[in-house]
Amino acid sequence: MEFSTFGKRYARRTGARELMDDLGAAMASEADVMMLGGGNPAHIPEIQALLADRLRALSNDARELRRMLGDYASPAGELQFRQSLATLLRSTYGWPLDADNIALTSGSQSGFFQLFNLLAGQFDDGSTRRILFPLTPEYAGYNDLGISNDMFVARQPSIEQLGGRLFKYHVDFDNLVIDNSIAALCVSRPCNPTGNVLTDAEMQGLGELARAHGVPLIVDSAYGLPFPQIVFRDCEPYWDDNVILTMSLSKLGLPAVRNGIVIARPEIIDALAGMNAVISLAVGSVGAVLMRELVDSGDVIDISRKVIRPYYESRMRAALESVHSSLKGRNYFVHRPEGAFFLWLWLPDLPISSAELYQRLKARDVIVLPGEHFFPGLGEDWPHKRQCLRLSYAQDAAAVERGIAALGEELHALGA
Amino acid sequence: MEFSTFGKRYARRTGARELMDDLGAAMASEADVMMLGGGNPAHIPEIQALLADRLRALSNDARELRRMLGDYASPAGELQFRQSLATLLRSTYGWPLDADNIALTSGSQSGFFQLFNLLAGQFDDGSTRRILFPLTPEYAGYNDLGISNDMFVARQPSIEQLGGRLFKYHVDFDNLVIDNSIAALCVSRPCNPTGNVLTDAEMQGLGELARAHGVPLIVDSAYGLPFPQIVFRDCEPYWDDNVILTMSLSKLGLPAVRNGIVIARPEIIDALAGMNAVISLAVGSVGAVLMRELVDSGDVIDISRKVIRPYYESRMRAALESVHSSLKGRNYFVHRPEGAFFLWLWLPDLPISSAELYQRLKARDVIVLPGEHFFPGLGEDWPHKRQCLRLSYAQDAAAVERGIAALGEELHALGA
Repeated sequence: MEFSTFGKRYARRTGARELMDDLGAAMASEADVMMLGGGNPAHIPEIQALLADRLRALSNDARELRRMLGDYASPAGELQFRQSLATLLRSTYGWPLDADNIALTSGSQSGFFQLFNLLAGQFDDGSTRRILFPLTPEYAGYNDLGISNDMFVARQPSIEQLGGRLFKYHVDFDNLVIDNSIAALCVSRPCNPTGNVLTDAEMQGLGELARAHGVPLIVDSAYGLPFPQIVFRDCEPYWDDNVILTMSLSKLGLPAVRNGIVIARPEIIDALAGMNAVISLAVGSVGAVLMRELVDSGDVIDISRKVIRPYYESRMRAALESVHSSLKGRNYFVHRPEGAFFLWLWLPDLPISSAELYQRLKARDVIVLPGEHFFPGLGEDWPHKRQCLRLSYAQDAAAVERGIAALGEELHALGA
Repeated sequence: MEFSTFGKRYARRTGARELMDDLGAAMASEADVMMLGGGNPAHIPEIQALLADRLRALSNDARELRRMLGDYASPAGELQFRQSLATLLRSTYGWPLDADNIALTSGSQSGFFQLFNLLAGQFDDGSTRRILFPLTPEYAGYNDLGISNDMFVARQPSIEQLGGRLFKYHVDFDNLVIDNSIAALCVSRPCNPTGNVLTDAEMQGLGELARAHGVPLIVDSAYGLPFPQIVFRDCEPYWDDNVILTMSLSKLGLPAVRNGIVIARPEIIDALAGMNAVISLAVGSVGAVLMRELVDSGDVIDISRKVIRPYYESRMRAALESVHSSLKGRNYFVHRPEGAFFLWLWLPDLPISSAELYQRLKARDVIVLPGEHFFPGLGEDWPHKRQCLRLSYAQDAAAVERGIAALGEELHALGA
């Protein structure tokens, strides 16, 4: 059976597909898989209990239950949640937001599919524009989202050595030339895969650059402020009317409800609402209704600060300790883990590609993610791309420790 | 701000957007709107109670709760639900299905976005292929789904007069020529908007025609068998390995969870899974986990037959009676309501377009849907397109009755 050009493009074996297949297989597997791949959040007991309580309350509230399950929302997404979130962000950060600054999407990924293809690609005047990632490594899921070929362009970072086997990527502003072919800038903050949190000065710089060139700055805050707040350093959230800020309910513990959030000026929200109506008819309301009370009360920020962030920070410290202990004697560097729930390893002496290392570890029931996937839009051959691994520390702690030990053994065997 | 060609295409003011905006505004409105538009299902008390019970049970089951909210599903959708549904369909109809014949999508609409653009549009060899709707009127939501222009083609129906002001559309097989430019055939059964249920002989004919031309037959069963079974006449469900059958949880009462279901041969399911992974990362699991027990036990078929179908059948009879009483003396015909939850009115003497009639009724707080939207792919100017209305009878019964009375008054005033 022959598929269309579009069909072939989106149905092909992508990095995202490999990731999700491995994740799904491992989650369903009877074997004792060490899951350091994927982006599944942890099941934090306090959060699970809170969600169970909310569901129990909703099951006894016929009106809210109808809103959660039984009524199509309007195209931009469930209105009360959008109003509550606008109020929360206004009171917390002083941003001048209203419900018409907020659209919900069927998960962040779908939101990015819509956003990237709205802003970039082919234009009616025959021109082509691209999304620029000012700093790679960057999220692998962006890679395959473009309707047209060649929709992304990216820059290498500058690398700061921090001592203690830590390093940090920075935006290389000197090489950040923006011309007419750029439709928007996009960064994740905290960064998936590296755990990097761009500094406030870098955000300021990117914001000014974007504004000067009349293009929006997209900031993917799936792990960031104000929730789920998986950020281990002081930093300010960044929004102005030239910023498209995306948030998510996934890393609060709700990846299976598929609720992405986009905060932008009304013109962009209206376009996304139109795309929702055509492509999805409506966006689901489960996450919105489930979380609205916590947004109204501001408790969503409290639980993020008091439960979610400390949980991941303590998991991060344990994982980092495992790396230092299991990789002792190897030549390795870890990106300073400033947020999200990944360790990003750089193995400069790796004699095979990180994709091959991924396969070797998978054969030992250790699932990690090879670094290759995390350079969307970066065409040039840069050895660094094959020298990195992303390790999630969100799943079972003992399995993470054993997985890292297995990695140490493989590296030892490879003489890396 | 300038949007891409794709962006403009999907963000434009489409019929679907108008529908969803009106529906959302009416649902949120304080005014006493008579809602005969939109496709929102009814809130059937027994079903609401059942869903509340399921949620309560899940809130006390930590493991299932994690699967429902906290874990990304594999790309084809939550595996246990797909296994359970395959088993149910195998035992009920004898279809040789397995989990790899089933994909979940983020709602049926997203499923059709993926399916249509997978099968039709531009091909690598430079050719263009289209989806053929063998019978229009057909679902308005198909209209705007094509990535490329001109992706749909359609045929007029033949019209059978049944007496008692009823009529029925039939596939006009004599004019159903299929050439190389056709990628697939697509019908909704029961039909949204008309409530038509294609006869078993028509399905057989379409199935054979599709197979003879080496193209799949897509059957949209959002309202059909085995659930939610909003079908008021005896008919056989239709599936073979050349059929792509789509089902939905929406009309069971779960439109806000956004769970579509596609049943097809593994090659197509695998392609849809790939598209899910790229476009959505994963499909939501809420509907799948919420409904799995009812699918396992077969109760989902029982409640469809004993609760959902009788509920809508009795609503249909009341609405039909209202039409005959309020439109007495006017020249009108009603498509025989055989399924779904709409009355499709044909007003041959209407002196204005049905779009204008829609506006007049909206000004009286009566929301209906004008027929114009329901001829996707039918380019030719056919007066019938402007002479029809779709009335939903799923919402408040008294409001439906008052809405139909208001329609009668408008038609009287128009001398139609």
